[in-house]
Amino acid sequence: MKYIKKALENRTPYYSKMIDDGIILNANESAFKTPKKIIDLLKKELDNIDLRRYPDTDNLYVRERIAKSYNIDIKNVTCGVGSDQLLDCIFRSLIDDEYILACNPTFSMYKEYASYTNGKFIDIDFLDGFSYDVKTIKESIIKYNPKLVIICSPNNPTGSIMERNDLIDIIKLTKGVVLLDEAYSEFYKSNYDLALTYDNVIVLKTFSKAYALAGIRLGYAISSYDLIDTLNVVKPPYNLSTISQIAAGIAIENKALYKDQIDEIVSLKDKLYNDLVDLGLNPSKSYSNFIFLKLSDKVYENLLKNKIYIRKLMYNNELWYRINTGTSEENSILINKIKEAL
Amino acid sequence: MKYIKKALENRTPYYSKMIDDGIILNANESAFKTPKKIIDLLKKELDNIDLRRYPDTDNLYVRERIAKSYNIDIKNVTCGVGSDQLLDCIFRSLIDDEYILACNPTFSMYKEYASYTNGKFIDIDFLDGFSYDVKTIKESIIKYNPKLVIICSPNNPTGSIMERNDLIDIIKLTKGVVLLDEAYSEFYKSNYDLALTYDNVIVLKTFSKAYALAGIRLGYAISSYDLIDTLNVVKPPYNLSTISQIAAGIAIENKALYKDQIDEIVSLKDKLYNDLVDLGLNPSKSYSNFIFLKLSDKVYENLLKNKIYIRKLMYNNELWYRINTGTSEENSILINKIKEAL
Repeated sequence: MKYIKKALENRTPYYSKMIDDGIILNANESAFKTPKKIIDLLKKELDNIDLRRYPDTDNLYVRERIAKSYNIDIKNVTCGVGSDQLLDCIFRSLIDDEYILACNPTFSMYKEYASYTNGKFIDIDFLDGFSYDVKTIKESIIKYNPKLVIICSPNNPTGSIMERNDLIDIIKLTKGVVLLDEAYSEFYKSNYDLALTYDNVIVLKTFSKAYALAGIRLGYAISSYDLIDTLNVVKPPYNLSTISQIAAGIAIENKALYKDQIDEIVSLKDKLYNDLVDLGLNPSKSYSNFIFLKLSDKVYENLLKNKIYIRKLMYNNELWYRINTGTSEENSILINKIKEAL
Repeated sequence: MKYIKKALENRTPYYSKMIDDGIILNANESAFKTPKKIIDLLKKELDNIDLRRYPDTDNLYVRERIAKSYNIDIKNVTCGVGSDQLLDCIFRSLIDDEYILACNPTFSMYKEYASYTNGKFIDIDFLDGFSYDVKTIKESIIKYNPKLVIICSPNNPTGSIMERNDLIDIIKLTKGVVLLDEAYSEFYKSNYDLALTYDNVIVLKTFSKAYALAGIRLGYAISSYDLIDTLNVVKPPYNLSTISQIAAGIAIENKALYKDQIDEIVSLKDKLYNDLVDLGLNPSKSYSNFIFLKLSDKVYENLLKNKIYIRKLMYNNELWYRINTGTSEENSILINKIKEAL
């Protein structure tokens, strides 16, 4: 690339052909479609909105509904194009040449967005069985004084969770900011209230997983007024389409519609875990809608051949796989096709 | 803001209450609503798409339709959340501590996104009557060797255009990249083909103005394969909601629907210009859907009092105003309320 700036000259553009046929278990999306009622309400709204106008840059429609759902102040909420954009805002607004502490393996976009700053990563390994190594995390916070500590709970891709008392200890110990990424917390439980108790906590959440709305790209942060202001300094104006704002607002207003669906996803994931154990495999204990495990190349090839798509990830120089739960039928086919190639 | 990084400590977050009542002439939006047929086609598509899935990160649906509309290769196109996101990508991928040449006054977001880089701006004033000072631009390109030369044509907020032969001279003279921002070119004419003739040109376009779809936030760049790859290195994955991609695809596929609407907007702007001249004012000669001029505080206050919203801009330490054309009725009220306070 002739004109790219020096710091990026070894990068390559990201392209990825969309998969829309087969059993898609590679993106931690919901096993179930968006409830029809949400789509119907959205279609109705399309007759009322004036798409010629720029969206509300303050995102009031959706922020009001998010705030109401948690019974918090609207000024404790900001929204982005997925939680991804808020990650970018976090790194862009907070990090110069300072330390960032995160665990390994975790969501790959942290390092991607951090790469535009001068931040330096400290990676903390998980303990055996992928439980958080809280002791080493604490020691490293004392040693390095990181500007940002990232805890993803439930963690992508391992499904690990950090206990509330450990989270509180870490928040109290950190002089910088603690990012608690709760993209998957609807499948277990949320500690969002910590963002209102402590002034250095940002909780990130999304409509892409439990809300079955990855297509609208809307995530949100819950934090102190001061940190929300900080994110809004760098948040691009008019960042969210009017339609996405309304879709997310409708979804959270109707969150009762999702309750059974979420319970069902958790049961499906538990059954999938047991079925994988029964096959002699060693899946991670996950508190989310996905499972992390090692598989042979032969198994992976057999899944691909049968149009079953799971996520391949490099972890400690080995190939691992992340599989989100599908429906009961999809999981049965998955298990059969794994068995076939064992 | 306690945790914001040092380089940003003097910034303030951007908040802006949305105006949805009165005569709104402050955002260069279309004078006319999105054609009903576009909305109807979009609603129909909502029954077919699976919003639980992440959007196509390669944006094929909309890129195919854009490419077809210009009869160009899809690999010459990339899409962003408005052309704003592509501006951010341009600065992020190209600029380190290099010169950026732009004219003054112009679109304020150039400096906003450049502020996250170490780029240094060279501002070139317009000549009297806001025509481009091509001679000084050329001399400055030779003198400073800028990494990026920005030409907005028609220019926001002056409505000035740069002639094609001057554009070509500037492109040939520039060793870096020329950004030709054509957000408003549907109201005059486009030189998008220069992005395919020369390897150092990026043309930016948007659905927010002539296409009356500011609410979906979708812009696009036309450029060489190499520069499109460069932008895609830093473009966030899954940047565009599925619904926005489909809405823009439908709009450009049905661009014939907009022809009369665009012709009418140009006529309305011309009549508005003449009416302002008749009032003894000195509006800029504009090739877009808006007009730039000086007004007294008294006039501005009278417009506000009557819920007529225009854009206040600081230019060379003086207050100026940008007014986009409304409908015939809206323009009549505007002219009357200006007259009332002269």
